[in-house]
Amino acid sequence: MPFRVAVVGTGFIGPVHVEGLRRAGQEVVGILGSSAEKSKQAADRLRIPTAYADFDALLADGDVDSVHITSPNRYHFDQAAAALKAGKHVMCEKPLAMTSEESGKLVEIAAESGKAAGVNYNIRYYPMCLDAAGRVASGELGGVFHVAGSYVQDWMFHPTDFNWRVLASEGGELRAVADIGTHWLDLIYSITRLDVAAVCADLHTVYPTRQRPTGNVETFSSGAGGDIPTEPIAIDTEDYGCVMLRFANGARGVLWVSQVTAGRKNCLRFEIAGEKESLAWVSESPNDLWVGHRDRPNEAVIRDPGSLAESAQGFSDYPAGHNEGFPDTFKMCFRAFYNSIESGGQPNYPTFAEGHREIVLCEAILESHQEQRWIELNTK
Amino acid sequence: MPFRVAVVGTGFIGPVHVEGLRRAGQEVVGILGSSAEKSKQAADRLRIPTAYADFDALLADGDVDSVHITSPNRYHFDQAAAALKAGKHVMCEKPLAMTSEESGKLVEIAAESGKAAGVNYNIRYYPMCLDAAGRVASGELGGVFHVAGSYVQDWMFHPTDFNWRVLASEGGELRAVADIGTHWLDLIYSITRLDVAAVCADLHTVYPTRQRPTGNVETFSSGAGGDIPTEPIAIDTEDYGCVMLRFANGARGVLWVSQVTAGRKNCLRFEIAGEKESLAWVSESPNDLWVGHRDRPNEAVIRDPGSLAESAQGFSDYPAGHNEGFPDTFKMCFRAFYNSIESGGQPNYPTFAEGHREIVLCEAILESHQEQRWIELNTK
Amino acid sequence: MPFRVAVVGTGFIGPVHVEGLRRAGQEVVGILGSSAEKSKQAADRLRIPTAYADFDALLADGDVDSVHITSPNRYHFDQAAAALKAGKHVMCEKPLAMTSEESGKLVEIAAESGKAAGVNYNIRYYPMCLDAAGRVASGELGGVFHVAGSYVQDWMFHPTDFNWRVLASEGGELRAVADIGTHWLDLIYSITRLDVAAVCADLHTVYPTRQRPTGNVETFSSGAGGDIPTEPIAIDTEDYGCVMLRFANGARGVLWVSQVTAGRKNCLRFEIAGEKESLAWVSESPNDLWVGHRDRPNEAVIRDPGSLAESAQGFSDYPAGHNEGFPDTFKMCFRAFYNSIESGGQPNYPTFAEGHREIVLCEAILESHQEQRWIELNTK
Amino acid sequence: MPFRVAVVGTGFIGPVHVEGLRRAGQEVVGILGSSAEKSKQAADRLRIPTAYADFDALLADGDVDSVHITSPNRYHFDQAAAALKAGKHVMCEKPLAMTSEESGKLVEIAAESGKAAGVNYNIRYYPMCLDAAGRVASGELGGVFHVAGSYVQDWMFHPTDFNWRVLASEGGELRAVADIGTHWLDLIYSITRLDVAAVCADLHTVYPTRQRPTGNVETFSSGAGGDIPTEPIAIDTEDYGCVMLRFANGARGVLWVSQVTAGRKNCLRFEIAGEKESLAWVSESPNDLWVGHRDRPNEAVIRDPGSLAESAQGFSDYPAGHNEGFPDTFKMCFRAFYNSIESGGQPNYPTFAEGHREIVLCEAILESHQEQRWIELNTK
Repeated sequence: MPFRVAVVGTGFIGPVHVEGLRRAGQEVVGILGSSAEKSKQAADRLRIPTAYADFDALLADGDVDSVHITSPNRYHFDQAAAALKAGKHVMCEKPLAMTSEESGKLVEIAAESGKAAGVNYNIRYYPMCLDAAGRVASGELGGVFHVAGSYVQDWMFHPTDFNWRVLASEGGELRAVADIGTHWLDLIYSITRLDVAAVCADLHTVYPTRQRPTGNVETFSSGAGGDIPTEPIAIDTEDYGCVMLRFANGARGVLWVSQVTAGRKNCLRFEIAGEKESLAWVSESPNDLWVGHRDRPNEAVIRDPGSLAESAQGFSDYPAGHNEGFPDTFKMCFRAFYNSIESGGQPNYPTFAEGHREIVLCEAILESHQEQRWIELNTK
Repeated sequence: MPFRVAVVGTGFIGPVHVEGLRRAGQEVVGILGSSAEKSKQAADRLRIPTAYADFDALLADGDVDSVHITSPNRYHFDQAAAALKAGKHVMCEKPLAMTSEESGKLVEIAAESGKAAGVNYNIRYYPMCLDAAGRVASGELGGVFHVAGSYVQDWMFHPTDFNWRVLASEGGELRAVADIGTHWLDLIYSITRLDVAAVCADLHTVYPTRQRPTGNVETFSSGAGGDIPTEPIAIDTEDYGCVMLRFANGARGVLWVSQVTAGRKNCLRFEIAGEKESLAWVSESPNDLWVGHRDRPNEAVIRDPGSLAESAQGFSDYPAGHNEGFPDTFKMCFRAFYNSIESGGQPNYPTFAEGHREIVLCEAILESHQEQRWIELNTK
Repeated sequence: MPFRVAVVGTGFIGPVHVEGLRRAGQEVVGILGSSAEKSKQAADRLRIPTAYADFDALLADGDVDSVHITSPNRYHFDQAAAALKAGKHVMCEKPLAMTSEESGKLVEIAAESGKAAGVNYNIRYYPMCLDAAGRVASGELGGVFHVAGSYVQDWMFHPTDFNWRVLASEGGELRAVADIGTHWLDLIYSITRLDVAAVCADLHTVYPTRQRPTGNVETFSSGAGGDIPTEPIAIDTEDYGCVMLRFANGARGVLWVSQVTAGRKNCLRFEIAGEKESLAWVSESPNDLWVGHRDRPNEAVIRDPGSLAESAQGFSDYPAGHNEGFPDTFKMCFRAFYNSIESGGQPNYPTFAEGHREIVLCEAILESHQEQRWIELNTK
Repeated sequence: MPFRVAVVGTGFIGPVHVEGLRRAGQEVVGILGSSAEKSKQAADRLRIPTAYADFDALLADGDVDSVHITSPNRYHFDQAAAALKAGKHVMCEKPLAMTSEESGKLVEIAAESGKAAGVNYNIRYYPMCLDAAGRVASGELGGVFHVAGSYVQDWMFHPTDFNWRVLASEGGELRAVADIGTHWLDLIYSITRLDVAAVCADLHTVYPTRQRPTGNVETFSSGAGGDIPTEPIAIDTEDYGCVMLRFANGARGVLWVSQVTAGRKNCLRFEIAGEKESLAWVSESPNDLWVGHRDRPNEAVIRDPGSLAESAQGFSDYPAGHNEGFPDTFKMCFRAFYNSIESGGQPNYPTFAEGHREIVLCEAILESHQEQRWIELNTK
């Protein structure tokens, strides 16, 4: 029997969850938008049986086994807590909460609930990322020397680009680091399993003033078109950030993020130098993994379900050469989540503890930037 | 209301249809395997309500609006004809039939039926292929000078690799050209809309003997493992083929196909030289289109739903930088098929006439090889 | 002591020889242009001691050990024959002559002379091409299944592009195949050492009329600028060609060439499918060789002097990661030529016999196109 | 008349200068090795007329117009100072000196001498790097937002890899940053002309102990082979480094360097995000420049002498598609140097002031690492 799932959020990412859930063989029984009308529209468009009037109606739906939360960041804490307390599994979009105090509480609430509590770090589920993790876990890479990479976009390139995420009040004090940088940080953690011991960050707001559409600007609306009236608004979140990392084992790292690099649409890159080999991956060609060698030719590994690392087996459905992509990562993250619930074993998905870890990291990054110095962490 | 669809075939490609149909918002109501038991297993595994005992049971199911045929090639004609006559829409896997006589009849049967009749040339539906077609249609490319490309795999690389498709009796006298070459030929047709006037082909069976697993070898079983007993079998289909093309407008073309090129898992490439620019695409990086210019820098176009050619609009769901892949092409091909039915206009999908066209081409290619000379076609 | 070399030709390729000779440690003692004045200008510009008034003056120069011929194609036969008879080594630009009758005679003249006689198939000397040849020679590749590739440019893209090479009277009846296709054919020969048994070709003149600058158009002048008066001229040489190949061992091949593909500046590609692995190379990234495998990851080999195939050792001077390019191939081809002379052993460079082989091939290709059928060769 | 040049140093880079000088049309009249015997051997091997017994003999050679210094770093100051005072032009390998005190003095000595004084930052002279600089200078890029990149190698990957450069006493306290990082820093400066206002660095010695060959280890000898006796030696220079940068205009930057990343042979990458477009370049494909756009397709620019930025014109000799490489950058750097002398105008090459600038930067980077904080600079 499939799990019966309700989805919260009808913007870009809500429907992606709906599709991913269906591909993962689960049943989407209801959806909640920012109003009863929005719920109805989405339910019709996506052919979902129930449109909830509000979050309480969703909680009260006894048919619902599991809730996927894709609402704006500031609702995550309340909704996740309430859903867990209502006896439902929760898969929450990142960031798990607005502060580490909140996310720390959610970890406790999840533990008390006995329910599965996951954060949708879907990028882990690119098969070649899972494969990279398998290579590290097996010892093939040897110890990690250093990790470098980036997550770069251009959707905030123009000073006329605007989205609720640029406002600290809506999305949190960190933006580029929190929105995309945490994907990179989580990915590197999922591959290397290294704890971050200290960070040193430099953030920069390229456009301290942007143009915001005037009038009734909806939370989910995207950037202003050419002839929409706008007004200037001061921006207090970063367009660019760089973070140097020290891992608990002495390895080093560096990440840079940008939302104002023309031509990079959504490009995550990493390069992990290890004692025995190196690994590099670029999200623009997600079916390829580069494995660097000193004493023999480098390898250009093509995703092939039959030859993935053992821990990655079962998370790639299409034969080699038949590219999988971004939508498939949702399917696989949800497969991991629901398989893990069914099997009853250790969570094999990004947990609330891992979601909390990212928020602790973000707070240290912000503190480092504000104080212009290295900040040590106690992630464990 | 979604269309209610029955799927025939439970091998590799049947479940791909199931997933694509669901993502396209259609309802999969039943499935048919090579036996009642296989139907049942697939229905359970894929959570499909009805498992048919046989094809007649499927035809008799009044709930079924549409049938997707993914059975072995030699069943396509009978099943497609029967389904159309039973008043159901048909989406058939390629090749449409075993001979042009059959496929020609199917074109007539489809016309008489008044039902939609499509062939699943899914590769057309990579958004950058649709975009390429839009560029040609708009005149941006100018007249086509020549087209070159390939479809290359390695799944038949070893003489111990075996599949029913290598036997002419099961898959037809052409193999590499028919299985993969026709995808390329259809793709080029869909982009350029050029008719082929003449072909000159050279085919080669690299391994005239292969090892076939002995005993009860199922039609769908894949290559022999290390310790399965095998027996030698003479192979009468090509591992490699090359076809020179002349198009009706005087443009030239060349295609080569191989199933024995180590390291190329499933690689389709084309390069179209036009009067004003060139276009190149590789299926291993399907989100990228190369646009070549003589007098200004070449462009590396990244798939972006907002900037696709007008005719490609609506066939890409994920933002730029969020890679779509092979599974998405099924979703989009089926979206085109069912939208076309709903809108009632001209078919905006690969029709039976176009499926027939490919079989006519294949017969000319085979004749050319056998006679070692150019063969002219009358495709129109 | 370095060899003392005279260079014939002061167009694009003559100075490339001068530079390559100097880098290879040889001494350029004199140069000959299309007039005494041109000789003088080139000698001054390139700092060469002697400017010859004419070819006889060059032949009479007792200081000259060796002559590099880079004059227009139609002079090659006379100049090469005369230089050999005058007791000088000859390195001739391709094509060796205008007809196989001529090139056959040159092979005889060379043998009688006892002098070294080479053809400048410089592309063989990209280190990764030499390495590919080493891989085939060592048996690493196993038997060759098939070879496919292309040589594509855009310098004749516009109907206003003009060069003496487009005229059969100046450059020969074949153009794209002879100018660039023969580089590919020679390269594949140098790698695989397979003889061509039969060819089937299709040639196409995309622009049967071009605009030629009027007035005193010099042989070496390049395409017409915007405001130079031009006149239409009928073109009888191909802009595009495709050749299917059968090798003596049963392997197959296909080559296409084009000089009208916008955006491809000078792009040679090959893909060799062998019994044990595949090799692919693209001249745009000449320091990389792709090695394809069926049962393990593909390799992206980076040029590294220390790990080249043994037969390629000594033909790459710069460490891995320090790219070598087109100019380096001349240095290496000339190093091979002069080392071979010094060592007195078997020629380890493209010989007149191999230059003759290409002309025989070209004549078969032209005949195949004219007769629209396969033509068999006796290259040996 | 060519300049008459003497070269100091016969290791890897000395002969590269010899070749580059000859290609640039200059005359190499003499060479100096680490002993009279080494001078003689190199002179013979490279066919250079004069082998100097020592540096004084070189200085005393009245035929010498110019001296190229490629000796170990610690000799640069004395040799450069002496050569300038002897009235010779100087082209010095980087780093210009061991300390900023020394390099500062050299700037003064150069000014007093009235001679040309350059530092061989050859990487600037990749044509696409010159082109990038031209794009910034012309305003095409707009203001620089941020710059990120790396210089990564693997030649120190194993703890048994050894070279005099790993010892602070021989090469200076900084290694990876000084050896390769300064190439990146200079390149970015040459492109953006932005001064660095502050740095924050983290350095890491992955192998604090390496194996050094015992016995008479020559300064220039490379890593230990398998059966050479070795002894452990403590290493006090970094294998890895990361530097965050703030430029005087507020732009940000980040550079990481590594000499222990398996599979990266010698890979320099940069990505410059500007107000109007982005630029990216990778030294492994030096003939390509990526130009990123937000509102139109990205461009993949191929080196083409005819379409380079105006300031880059004259520094690329081979037509588009005929790859230039690492050796060509020496030719072009020397062309710039000697053309600049001949023309008598402003230096159009990396000056001693710019070489000094790098050493000031390095000292700030080292101080930042030692003090674990941001360090401000006064580069101007």
